Amino acid sequence: MSVVHHQLRRGCYLDSIVLLQMQRFLEEQPGVNEAAAIMASRANLEILAAGRLAIEVDSRDEDLLLVARAEDESTASRAFEKVDDWLRQRGEKNAGEHRPRTLATALQMLPTAQWVSISVPGRYATRVAEEALDLGRNVFLYSDNVPLDEERRLKETARAKGLLLLGPDCGTAIVNGVGLGFANRVRRGSIGLVAASGTGLQSVTTRIHALGRGISHGLGTGGRDLRAEIGAATSHQALDLLARDPATRVIVLLSKPTSPATAVALLARARCTGKPVVVYLQDGSPPCRRLGPLFFATDLDDAAELATELDTTDLGIVGPPRAGTSGFVRGLFSGGTLALELLQVLRTLVQPVYSNLSAQGVEPVSGHGAPGHSVIDLGSDELTLGLPHPMIDPQSRLDRLRREADDPKVGVVVLDVVLGDGSDADPAASLAPTIAAIRADRDLPILCLVVGTDLDPQNTDAQVQRLSDAGATVHLRLADLADDLEGRLRASDLEATETDLGALAAPAVVNVGLEAFYDSLREQEAEVVHVDWRPPAGGNEQLMSILEKLRS
Amino acid sequence: MSVVHHQLRRGCYLDSIVLLQMQRFLEEQPGVNEAAAIMASRANLEILAAGRLAIEVDSRDEDLLLVARAEDESTASRAFEKVDDWLRQRGEKNAGEHRPRTLATALQMLPTAQWVSISVPGRYATRVAEEALDLGRNVFLYSDNVPLDEERRLKETARAKGLLLLGPDCGTAIVNGVGLGFANRVRRGSIGLVAASGTGLQSVTTRIHALGRGISHGLGTGGRDLRAEIGAATSHQALDLLARDPATRVIVLLSKPTSPATAVALLARARCTGKPVVVYLQDGSPPCRRLGPLFFATDLDDAAELATELDTTDLGIVGPPRAGTSGFVRGLFSGGTLALELLQVLRTLVQPVYSNLSAQGVEPVSGHGAPGHSVIDLGSDELTLGLPHPMIDPQSRLDRLRREADDPKVGVVVLDVVLGDGSDADPAASLAPTIAAIRADRDLPILCLVVGTDLDPQNTDAQVQRLSDAGATVHLRLADLADDLEGRLRASDLEATETDLGALAAPAVVNVGLEAFYDSLREQEAEVVHVDWRPPAGGNEQLMSILEKLRS
Repeated sequence: MSVVHHQLRRGCYLDSIVLLQMQRFLEEQPGVNEAAAIMASRANLEILAAGRLAIEVDSRDEDLLLVARAEDESTASRAFEKVDDWLRQRGEKNAGEHRPRTLATALQMLPTAQWVSISVPGRYATRVAEEALDLGRNVFLYSDNVPLDEERRLKETARAKGLLLLGPDCGTAIVNGVGLGFANRVRRGSIGLVAASGTGLQSVTTRIHALGRGISHGLGTGGRDLRAEIGAATSHQALDLLARDPATRVIVLLSKPTSPATAVALLARARCTGKPVVVYLQDGSPPCRRLGPLFFATDLDDAAELATELDTTDLGIVGPPRAGTSGFVRGLFSGGTLALELLQVLRTLVQPVYSNLSAQGVEPVSGHGAPGHSVIDLGSDELTLGLPHPMIDPQSRLDRLRREADDPKVGVVVLDVVLGDGSDADPAASLAPTIAAIRADRDLPILCLVVGTDLDPQNTDAQVQRLSDAGATVHLRLADLADDLEGRLRASDLEATETDLGALAAPAVVNVGLEAFYDSLREQEAEVVHVDWRPPAGGNEQLMSILEKLRS
Repeated sequence: MSVVHHQLRRGCYLDSIVLLQMQRFLEEQPGVNEAAAIMASRANLEILAAGRLAIEVDSRDEDLLLVARAEDESTASRAFEKVDDWLRQRGEKNAGEHRPRTLATALQMLPTAQWVSISVPGRYATRVAEEALDLGRNVFLYSDNVPLDEERRLKETARAKGLLLLGPDCGTAIVNGVGLGFANRVRRGSIGLVAASGTGLQSVTTRIHALGRGISHGLGTGGRDLRAEIGAATSHQALDLLARDPATRVIVLLSKPTSPATAVALLARARCTGKPVVVYLQDGSPPCRRLGPLFFATDLDDAAELATELDTTDLGIVGPPRAGTSGFVRGLFSGGTLALELLQVLRTLVQPVYSNLSAQGVEPVSGHGAPGHSVIDLGSDELTLGLPHPMIDPQSRLDRLRREADDPKVGVVVLDVVLGDGSDADPAASLAPTIAAIRADRDLPILCLVVGTDLDPQNTDAQVQRLSDAGATVHLRLADLADDLEGRLRASDLEATETDLGALAAPAVVNVGLEAFYDSLREQEAEVVHVDWRPPAGGNEQLMSILEKLRS
């Protein structure tokens, strides 16, 4: 019958990856049936107790606990002794290297370090990040389980100081050719990324590399950055940095599902970068490939392919953003599907958006009148009861159009004109004079989507001509109309961010936490100092908070 | 002061478009300030009363009511008299033409008619449609406001008889070059469409025409066909018809927002057509351009462009569908974003799908175990508390993989393998032997998505080679993996539909309802007979139901 033995090593703090390797080593020792190598925190002891390795021990967070189920005590002791050899061998690669115990000392050793990489357990992470920001450094915060209100506070501090804070729970970044956290080795180049998704960023950068192009910077923001409570704070700063970064020619923005308002503000920022931005919205793109400087990808691979294409094409498009209207968009549609298509475009450019059609990110409203930005399906049942369809009878739309034009808050009107058999025999006959009268009165853009062919009884070319002559802007593809519409809408007023471009210089890094990240930075030949971090006050919460108060 | 005058013409039934034209004519008469021309139903009288044309009259649904607000009675009378001239002029174009009063008689006059187009007011439409189906004819049902349970009953009847019933509220169809309802004039060709959306169908057919290609048939199904209660009954029949139609080379399927189960069944049908199918899902496509024979469009214009491209390309792809597994798909992922991407693909191919990630059309489940088809993010907080991330430590996934392989209900396993700095230094070292052991035991497809570059420390090529040698199928793009996965999954068992191909022959039509549709069919030189329809029993509901009982 095997018995559980243990050994406690006081004040010997190791990170979770080293512990894992040590545990695997213990498990491989002869006569050992099961083993654990953990920091002896209360929580970890409870996990042990729930399994088959329950032990009683009086310990602190900073104590190393080795546990083994073995035939007899001498077998377990032999295994525990071998751990010393194992630790000695590991230490040899860093022989002679001085490891500071505090971040402040580390920064004295490497004063050029503009980045601090933090991967300590979540409950200690905020304090380390605060210290790094206080010392004027950008933060790569790999640690997870940081409370949301602390994330917000940290990001406010960073922003106020002109610093970046990537994370918490930021899996990856590539800064000027150096990977932080998990990152693939990729060619240097002129495509920059901002990504709420770590493996998303890894997928796209590897694909761009495979396609023969390269990366300027890849900035992970942490998955929660797009939460309404955080408001994409880091993503805004990162976009703004890449906009100003001379090495970045094309930007890729990878989003996670988010609120409509957060998405619209972030895309408004993207529209103001003055560079082409490939956008991948994981919860659904608008039904068009392009809105001005924004290029929408259907998936991660497509994002990489689009970026590569843009990186090798002279678009000649993107100067400073045009000054568009801040007035309301009003869509008056006879076709329900076309209305829904426009709605899906509009909700990515402005918020809130109203409609009598139901869709995500759209506020419901009756078709009889709508506030703000709206798209109305005039063919809906509630508006056509006892009346012919608006594709046959233009009257109700003409009345409505005049009403919209009389409203000074309206900035753009969008109409569909559906030709063909069965429809109004000559829609331009009534629309053109109404449009001309409106345009004589004020410079209101009226965009028309004409659906028709050269064979249709109404003669599509003649209809287009008369609508154009009346002052309407006519499109034959909704995608073209959407692209045009983007250029007419002012990006909502954005707070300027003044993040220091120094964040994007060749990084020198202080690493606090996982030694594996230190090893990886050394392999990449980055300048790096590793802090021999251990939980303050041995992980005693009460003592930690007293120390905290003394410090401030 | 002007006064309201009226004139009632008993038994003079006119359709809503003719009434509208008559009303416009009345409004233009000198001295008339406001006018109405309506069928004198209770509902219409109430609409009048709500406006400024309230009158008292004892009337029936089949009576024509003219109302005018004018200076004096003689002015109104003169206007009413002019209506006679107007009606006489209208009648001249059909002079000498015999107009039957019943559908049965019309079909005796045109026995080759395989279509009946119905656009009578909604409350009469079901009875006319039932009669047409009883007489063995396909139905184009333009009428709206038909109750949902009647729609279901009509579609069940049609299907049992091998007939198509397009609608209700079907705006458009093109059958063998002839437009029914609202339709654009387009070139004949080899692209066939099935569309729940009328203006969607019009947009795509006009774009295909503009791109120089043509249409075989365009079958509108009515917007409610995709409701769960109807289960896309008409769409299934229409897809099946186009699959068997020799004139159709490429199919376009335009969907409206629908339930996940309805969408999956419809796409399963599309996968079984043996032809390439361009799919536009208005509520969000999966994150890939292609799943086997399905090509996903980003918008209506893109659908037209894709169809045109496929129509001119020899894909050599699409024979009868491969016989795939009906076992469960289990995704075990270390990257949350990659897991969500696969989830969005999987939910379009099978239902239900489970995950510890939240997404539309996905059932929530804890990450510790999942029934049915599932994709689990092994890096989620609940699974990594106190443990290293699965990108670093493969152990928990290896255990899980072995468990999945032991479950005979599992048909496919999907894994991601994310390389790069910071990740497991050699994931193939542990994965390959496990995969080889599983594959030695049973022929379980294990698909791996490898994310990495040639510069990564793990050596991507070597990792791919070892995983392949162990029997895994390795992909470097999620889109390729998704396409591969489609081919391995059997389309869920589908009921055969046996709709008569005669529906797609050059149409001869009996028109019941709007005269404008009759005019348009004549202009298109289709064989057509117009029924001089009027409400049975003068629109008296009680009498109608007695007649109905006598008939059956």
